[in-house]
Amino acid sequence: MEGVINMARILIVYYSRGGNTKRMAEEIAKGAKRESISVDLKRVERVKVEELLDYDGIIIGSPTYYGTMAAQIKRLLDESVKFHGKLDGKVGAAFASSANIGGGNETTILDILNAMLIHGMIIFGDPQGDHYGPVAIGTPDARSIKQCVRLGQRVAKLISRLP
Amino acid sequence: MEGVINMARILIVYYSRGGNTKRMAEEIAKGAKRESISVDLKRVERVKVEELLDYDGIIIGSPTYYGTMAAQIKRLLDESVKFHGKLDGKVGAAFASSANIGGGNETTILDILNAMLIHGMIIFGDPQGDHYGPVAIGTPDARSIKQCVRLGQRVAKLISRLP
Amino acid sequence: MEGVINMARILIVYYSRGGNTKRMAEEIAKGAKRESISVDLKRVERVKVEELLDYDGIIIGSPTYYGTMAAQIKRLLDESVKFHGKLDGKVGAAFASSANIGGGNETTILDILNAMLIHGMIIFGDPQGDHYGPVAIGTPDARSIKQCVRLGQRVAKLISRLP
Amino acid sequence: MEGVINMARILIVYYSRGGNTKRMAEEIAKGAKRESISVDLKRVERVKVEELLDYDGIIIGSPTYYGTMAAQIKRLLDESVKFHGKLDGKVGAAFASSANIGGGNETTILDILNAMLIHGMIIFGDPQGDHYGPVAIGTPDARSIKQCVRLGQRVAKLISRLP
Repeated sequence: MEGVINMARILIVYYSRGGNTKRMAEEIAKGAKRESISVDLKRVERVKVEELLDYDGIIIGSPTYYGTMAAQIKRLLDESVKFHGKLDGKVGAAFASSANIGGGNETTILDILNAMLIHGMIIFGDPQGDHYGPVAIGTPDARSIKQCVRLGQRVAKLISRLP
Repeated sequence: MEGVINMARILIVYYSRGGNTKRMAEEIAKGAKRESISVDLKRVERVKVEELLDYDGIIIGSPTYYGTMAAQIKRLLDESVKFHGKLDGKVGAAFASSANIGGGNETTILDILNAMLIHGMIIFGDPQGDHYGPVAIGTPDARSIKQCVRLGQRVAKLISRLP
Repeated sequence: MEGVINMARILIVYYSRGGNTKRMAEEIAKGAKRESISVDLKRVERVKVEELLDYDGIIIGSPTYYGTMAAQIKRLLDESVKFHGKLDGKVGAAFASSANIGGGNETTILDILNAMLIHGMIIFGDPQGDHYGPVAIGTPDARSIKQCVRLGQRVAKLISRLP
Repeated sequence: MEGVINMARILIVYYSRGGNTKRMAEEIAKGAKRESISVDLKRVERVKVEELLDYDGIIIGSPTYYGTMAAQIKRLLDESVKFHGKLDGKVGAAFASSANIGGGNETTILDILNAMLIHGMIIFGDPQGDHYGPVAIGTPDARSIKQCVRLGQRVAKLISRLP
């Protein structure tokens, strides 16, 4: 019982219209679960800002709209000011889908990561592949899916290192 | 008459709760008017996205919320996809107010500028002072106001160079 | 004669070890030449910083090394402080080659563009394709080459709009 | 003995001409030492790239030159490719000194942090004050020094959380 109660938890929040970002979120969830961590996967429209407090790790994904996250994701971040200081020390990560290479996917991820830094969260990169976080150009391909699974695993592993 | 009809026009769009970003917008408008350009100053809530088409220059300002623009500004940018390609070649600029030095004001401005680049807009920096665009830390002080006036002038001058 | 004397000039500066960035530079030069502008193409090692003053447009390309430009390019920018304020109003653009999608190509371009903004230069984006500037993932493919040619043309066209 | 052998170690690397960045580095060192961690403070000119392997945490500081780190710092990062993958999981942080507010201090810090992410390093932000890392505008003032000390403490504390 205690094991269950204390199990580390990750929330994956995403906004998706066409389904590409959703698919990435699902693959990240798979990766995290491989590391025996509890994962909740939610569309941003269904996330109440106070839920952010309940997790050890928060992963946020968005399509690239004008070089940064969708307004729907931004709204959640703006509302999170209510709990400013309370996310300090949690683990964060980000991912993005985009129509084009060089189309703003890196800036989208980095903008989400910046918001996490401002909350005092702990983030990390990957020396292989998509360094700041996984990106998909259009429908996630094998390369992108591999990066997503890997991110889920790496988030889970970092959380397990942090008592 | 013709002169009036052909007069170059700038739109300054801002979001402001406490009034700091609004004040900056007003000072930018003053600077632009000194260069005999027509200026409209509007809260983002009152801007219809199709209005963006009517101007030669668009200047956007936001408080810094989690290192980037407020969701209200982002929503306008997201809606502007409806006119993607139509803003190509217009002049853009950005400004931000922030609670702290090192608190995200530069990243806020650069995120707005990135969105403008994605629209194909023309932007520029300033070799003096606030290089990417004017910032205010709390209430705009004399330094910040000077930068705002200067930005308005420089936007107007660049527009007048572009036939 | 006068035509020759007054002809607008672009400098393309690049650093390249494997040849990918060099190839991009050559394609950009082709695009610019199509618009009847004079183009000089130089490896960064052969550029003297005072040469920057001689051009109407400066385009800088770099491989992506740790998310930003190579130290060789940075050194040229650092030396350019000697002429701070003198590049104000010139047109700038940037391009990058990278090993991976999501591997830092956007941040490399944006870092070069930021340096140009700090010089007071005029930059612009593209509503199609690689919005901030052309990127290549490994050897430039047809997509990347098209973006490069297009950039050269767009730089030349913007310069011709600016008297 | 064992305690000494296993003591966590931080390297602070900086480039400084006028002394402002050096002063920040010293204050960060003070903060870290308060948390009983071993700290080495070195000018970048004296750091051999292989030394990066010897530390649990690496903090890098630079003056803001054209919106990003000095070429001297960039060179060290470029050389670090020799050990790509070996810094994965180490803790990183960054700081910057700048002549102006809005003068590129945030972009300098974020560029260093991006390089750390590409190495797979773990970074974090601060919900108070300078969110991405400490900045000084000219000579470090009391505000900036407080941020520096705080960063040193926070890096040390995060390292102690990571077994």
